[in-house]
Formats: sequence, structure tokens, C-alpha cells
Amino acid sequence: MMNVNIGLLGCGTVGAGVIELMRRRTHKISDLTGLTPVITTVLVRDLEKPREVSLEQERLTKRPQDILEDESIRIVIETIGGIEPARTFILAALQAGKHVITANKDLIALHGVEILDAAAKAQVDVFYEAAVGGAIPLIRPLKESLTANDITDIKGIVNGTTNFILSKMTTTGADFEEVLKEAQDLGYAESDPSSDVDGLDAARKLAILASIAFHTRVHLSDVQVDGIRNISAVDVAYAHELGAVIKLLAIGADRDGELTLRVRPTLIPKGHPLAHVSDAYNALFVRGDASGDLMFFGRGAGSLPTASSVVADAIEALRNISISISGRIGSMYLGQKPVTQNLQDPVRHYIRLSAADRPGVFAQIAGIFGDASVSMETVLQKRTSERGADIVIVTHEVPTQVLDAAINRLRESPSVLSIHSVMPVEREEQA
Amino acid sequence: MMNVNIGLLGCGTVGAGVIELMRRRTHKISDLTGLTPVITTVLVRDLEKPREVSLEQERLTKRPQDILEDESIRIVIETIGGIEPARTFILAALQAGKHVITANKDLIALHGVEILDAAAKAQVDVFYEAAVGGAIPLIRPLKESLTANDITDIKGIVNGTTNFILSKMTTTGADFEEVLKEAQDLGYAESDPSSDVDGLDAARKLAILASIAFHTRVHLSDVQVDGIRNISAVDVAYAHELGAVIKLLAIGADRDGELTLRVRPTLIPKGHPLAHVSDAYNALFVRGDASGDLMFFGRGAGSLPTASSVVADAIEALRNISISISGRIGSMYLGQKPVTQNLQDPVRHYIRLSAADRPGVFAQIAGIFGDASVSMETVLQKRTSERGADIVIVTHEVPTQVLDAAINRLRESPSVLSIHSVMPVEREEQA
Repeated sequence: MMNVNIGLLGCGTVGAGVIELMRRRTHKISDLTGLTPVITTVLVRDLEKPREVSLEQERLTKRPQDILEDESIRIVIETIGGIEPARTFILAALQAGKHVITANKDLIALHGVEILDAAAKAQVDVFYEAAVGGAIPLIRPLKESLTANDITDIKGIVNGTTNFILSKMTTTGADFEEVLKEAQDLGYAESDPSSDVDGLDAARKLAILASIAFHTRVHLSDVQVDGIRNISAVDVAYAHELGAVIKLLAIGADRDGELTLRVRPTLIPKGHPLAHVSDAYNALFVRGDASGDLMFFGRGAGSLPTASSVVADAIEALRNISISISGRIGSMYLGQKPVTQNLQDPVRHYIRLSAADRPGVFAQIAGIFGDASVSMETVLQKRTSERGADIVIVTHEVPTQVLDAAINRLRESPSVLSIHSVMPVEREEQA
Repeated sequence: MMNVNIGLLGCGTVGAGVIELMRRRTHKISDLTGLTPVITTVLVRDLEKPREVSLEQERLTKRPQDILEDESIRIVIETIGGIEPARTFILAALQAGKHVITANKDLIALHGVEILDAAAKAQVDVFYEAAVGGAIPLIRPLKESLTANDITDIKGIVNGTTNFILSKMTTTGADFEEVLKEAQDLGYAESDPSSDVDGLDAARKLAILASIAFHTRVHLSDVQVDGIRNISAVDVAYAHELGAVIKLLAIGADRDGELTLRVRPTLIPKGHPLAHVSDAYNALFVRGDASGDLMFFGRGAGSLPTASSVVADAIEALRNISISISGRIGSMYLGQKPVTQNLQDPVRHYIRLSAADRPGVFAQIAGIFGDASVSMETVLQKRTSERGADIVIVTHEVPTQVLDAAINRLRESPSVLSIHSVMPVEREEQA
């Protein structure tokens, strides 16, 4: 059986998982592809650092050229993360005619076009299934299994850290800061958590998924992003009372070729399949014009779950090498679609505000909604404090622009002391 | 742009959906593959019958050789269903060097090996994504995305008819016969419903999925099958009281190379992702040693959902034709695995029985369980009628063989009038 040499860039959590899983599966991969994968060389920053995996057969190196310039290496797996030097290494590997597999969402979201173009030019494959959704097959199903559809909607829980924090807030009733600290102590959140909790990580994954699903190129700046820092235990409790949970949802919608792309905390009714995705799990909901509603669910991160997708990509590369093809799945780009801030779909909204605690105030607020043609489905008024009365309103379905006009009127009203939260409320889906 | 001619065998619900969807997507498919698919010829039984889709461009024929012997036709799509004449047509198409796409689960479950071998010999592709799970990508993710895993468990709700009936029984409290009649009136169940309600359809789909997931060949006779005819409204009500719903579950487990394959009504705790799969939806839960738990969810049947998978398969065939390859994904078979009737995993069980209504009876029943080393988690005793007392027991986790011994002892006991139901109870999963 012919060996295919593989160079691994980086040996952190994901890299160690790739080495471990590739060892476990070497025999099976040979049986399936007729080729035996061998990780010959591993690029690390520190040759002496203790590793999560024993490295006996592999050569450790600090010199990237030991991989990038080694002509015996056919496949390069990048698990360094971040933009540089990952970008430079990947471009060099592609130019040297090597197939590339990466789990690097930041790089694909920001420089995906450059990397895919370089791969096409060099007539090699680049795969990045692990960049979004960890172990969940998402990229390949979108590129191969759902191609007969016009996809109108993708909705995902694609960031495990925020999902863990929101799940914990829901089960314990604790506030954001407290749960964040616990997540940091457990290693679920980074010491600088902003990329996760401010929604940027989810926005990058949405940009990758939306580019493929909608056959266009989505730039990160096209995505409206709200994080979860301002979600309080009070909002979580009100959501529960309304039969919903709060999730950080990444939403892409294609309405007759016009896209809306948003990452926002959203109330999800407990009957919706996405409501049951908790802790470190991710899920992607997809609606196609022929398929109807689909959902993909699984572990969004972690050493072996991420390696599951990386090694599957390597098996695809081996299958292609074994029959001497590459670039079988070309670009999914079919033209640039415009992006709008205003989703035309009418959506229910949750609004929590403090109002002055005096007679007639509620009538004034109701009047503002009525004048703006926003009708109210549910009103809760529970807590009265020195700061005034705490009022929660769930509107009927209303276009975003109409709601925004009402919110602006509320802000100007002397009866409204402050508006704490405005969040969309998902429809209860069929299943 | 070069045309690729397609012959369609059958023009019922699925065939009409394929024509409709192929028309909608012709332009997009050309852009993605560089080839234009054209359905030139459609085999029907009755040339005059009104169709769900208008047939202007296509030539209708009653002669199969107009497709099978037309050298201009590169792809044959089979939507006739059943074993013959579908099998003969598909084998003839393959031998004539045509790529074949089929949604025919019966044929793949019973004659899959013969058909895959014929395709390999003729160096053409055969795809059957629509044979299991309608619109849900299952076959391709198992063959391409999860290949780095040893898959230990697959659990699916793969029959829409029984899922609709059980969902209706749960929401309305009605009995099986009543809901079956309603499902027949609505067209969700056939006039002879036995293939669905007796679990045979689910068993066929399980045989297909298990063969791929476990890299072996599963014969239909390897699958233990129980249908849903004996599920009563009383069981549904008790399940609800126990925080569960009853679903017809197709289960495949691989324990160190030994398989267990079963289709059985099962109690699923409401916190389990499969509990929320209702009506016409299907879902497949997969556990891999690296990926952890995954779930795929969507519409399991219907004209356009099924066509979504059939046309995606056609797009794959076109991609392969455009670069002159076939057989890229070879057989997943890696050797024959033995099948056992006795799953070693300890499983909780639900048992409903009628016992004589006299003092000391319950102690006798409890004694039988104790002697057999089966401990009881929950006991409900609600109804007492002329037939005796209705007792429901949920056991702690116990191997099947141990439970079976206890059940046999119960049957012999003079205190037990009859045992109505014995069903496994799924574990509450993480998410």
C-alpha cells in the first residue's frame, strides 16, 4: 500500500486530536482509500513542551520549510489558528502543489476567496469542514447534498462558549458576569472572551456558511452583530415565563436574492428544535425550497470532535489523490448578492424597559406602539423598584423597520426611563 | 453548454417532483457543473393519465428500451419503487454504462450488493441518498463526512407514517386503530399499512444505514422487528406520565464488531433530541468515537423533499461526468460482522401488565423481579378493573437477556393475568 505523507502545522488541542485519530484509523483509511496516511512532520513553536499526545514516529520541527518545502509531503493540515502565519503557510503549501486542510474559521471568513483561488490555480484541494460546527457535517452537505435547493434560511447556534453561558444562566438563574467567570475557570471561555461573547466568532462562521448556502461572497462587515453581554438573569427569567429560552442565533436569510445576515440573542420557543441545543453543542437549521426544514446537530468544538472533521477531509483528499483528481467541487459562487440591514419578514419582538411608576404611563407606552402600528401580544409587569416599573412586551409579528421606529419613539418618551433589551422571538416551528 | 440527457423511470409523486425541481434548477445546475441536465424521456404505465406536472418537453413512453437502449441517455433516475421491474431496469441501465440514481429503499435493502457490484463492474455511479430519510442528507455524510469515526450507534426515526400515528396518539389520546384510519383518509398511510406499521419499512432503512455506518452487509433478516399495532392509548398516557413519548426507533449498535439491529417502539424521555421529532419528520442520531453525538433531522418523505435528494444525486453524477470519473466513493464494506439478538448494553424497560387484584400479588411480582436481579425504578398502579389491576413498572438498566428471564418468570406466575407491553426506555441524552 502506498504511503501519503502529511505535514501538520501546529500541535495544540486540535493538532493533538488529529494525530491521535489518524493513528486510530490508519488501517481503516488504508482499506477505504487504498492509501496509507502518515503524519511525518509536525511544526511546533517549542520542541520541549509536553504534548497531549505522544510523538514518537513524527518529526517535530520549528522550521515551517521542513513541511512546506518537503516534496514528499502531499497534504498539509493547518491547526495553528488565527490569520498569520497560518495564511502565509497555507498559500505556500498550495503553491507547492499540496492539498490543504484547515479548521481555521477566522482565516476562511476573512481570506477564503484568496485561499480558494490559490487552490484552484494550483489544481489542488482545500477543505475546511472543521471551521464551522466542529464535528457536525455542514460544509460538505451544503456543497453536495442540498445543491438542488434554493436555500432561503440558515439559522445556527454556532458558538459553544456563548451557548454554554446562556444554558448555565437558564439552569442556575445566575447573571452573565458570574457564569462567564465560571466558564473561564472551566476552560470553556478564554481569558479575553470578547471574540465569543461579543458575537464575532459566530459572525465569522455565519459568513462562511452564508457564502456557500447562498452562492455568494459574504464579508464579515455584512453581518450585524450583537453579543450576549447585556443579557441579564431577568431576561432569562422572563423568557422562561414566556415559554422560551435565549440563544445566540446566527441568521442568514435570502429574500429574492437580497440577503440579511445577523448574529443576535434571540428568544426561541421551547417547542423549536433549536431550543434543545445546550452547552457545548452546535446546530444549524436550514430551509430549502424543495427540502423544507432540516437540522444538523452535534459537538461544536473539542479535540476529537474537531479532528473528526479534519481527518474526514484528509480521507477525501486521499480519495481524490488515489484517482488523480482535484477541484471536483468547484466554487459555489454564482454572483454577488446585495445585503440589507432590514429583514422584510415580520418578526415578533421581546422588549424589556423601565417606566416611571405613575398613573397613565402604561397607556402612553401602549399609545406609542399603537401609533407605530405595532400590536402587542403579551405584556408582563412584575417588578417595581426605585428605578420604576419593569415592563416586558412581546409584539405581534412586525417588520424590523416598523419596530425600530416604535423603539425610537419609546426612547424619546419621558415615561420611559430606559430600554434594557430588544430581542427577536423565533416562530414555533412545525417539529 | 453541453446537455446531458436523463431518462426517468416512473412519474408518480417522486417522479413528478424530480421533473418539477430539475426544471426550477436547470440554470443553477449548469452554472455549478458546466453541464445542462435534460430529462428527455419518461417511462410511464399509462400515456393518458393526468400528471401532477405538465409534460411538454419530455417524451412519454411505455417502452423501457426507449430509455435503457438510448445511447444518448447518460443518467437514469428510477422512481418506480418496489423490486421488479425496477431491479431489471436498473441492472440493464448500469450494464449499458449509464449512471443510476434511485430512491428505492426496498431494492437497495434487498439487492444493494448486486446493484453496487454491477455499477463497479460497469464503472458508473449509483446513488441512493433519497432511499432513506427523504430530504435529509444521511448516506453521503456517512460515506464522506463521518469516515474518520468508528460509529458505535445509529438510532433513527425513519418511518413517517408510524411517526405521524404515534404523534397523533400522543396529542389526541386516541387509540391506534382510530388514528390509523385518519392517517389513511389523509393519505399518510396506505390502504394496506402493514409495511409501515409492522416496522418492515423502518427495518429496510436500518439495513441500508447500518451497512454503511458499520462497514458491513446487513441482511433484512438480521433485524429484529416490532411494529406499533399493539401500542395503546393507555401506554401513550403512561409514557407521558413518565416524562416520555413513544417513538418507533430503528437502532443499530456495534459493540467491538458485534452488531445488534432492532426496530422497536421505545419510550424516549422528553429531554432527548429524538423526542421532538414529530409528524412527517425523520431523524437520525449517530454516535462516533471521535465526533460524539450527532443528529440529522428533516422531512422523511414527500414529492419535493425526496426530489431534493434525487436531484442532488444527479448533480453529483454531473460533476463526475464533467471530469470523466466514476466510482470515487467505493464500497464501504470492510468485512462481515456477526449479528446478535442480545444487546449487551443495560437498558431500562417499561412493562405494563394486568395482575390479579388480591393481597400479596404485588409482593409476588416484586419478588420475581428481585430474584431475576432486575431492580425497579418506578412503579405506577392506577386502574383497577374486572380484569385485575393495571401495573406499570420501569426497571433500572438491565441487560436484555436478564430482563427476558424476568419476563418469562412473570408469564408463568398465576398472579400475572397478562403482559401488555414491554418497551425499552432510552437514556436522557446530554443535549
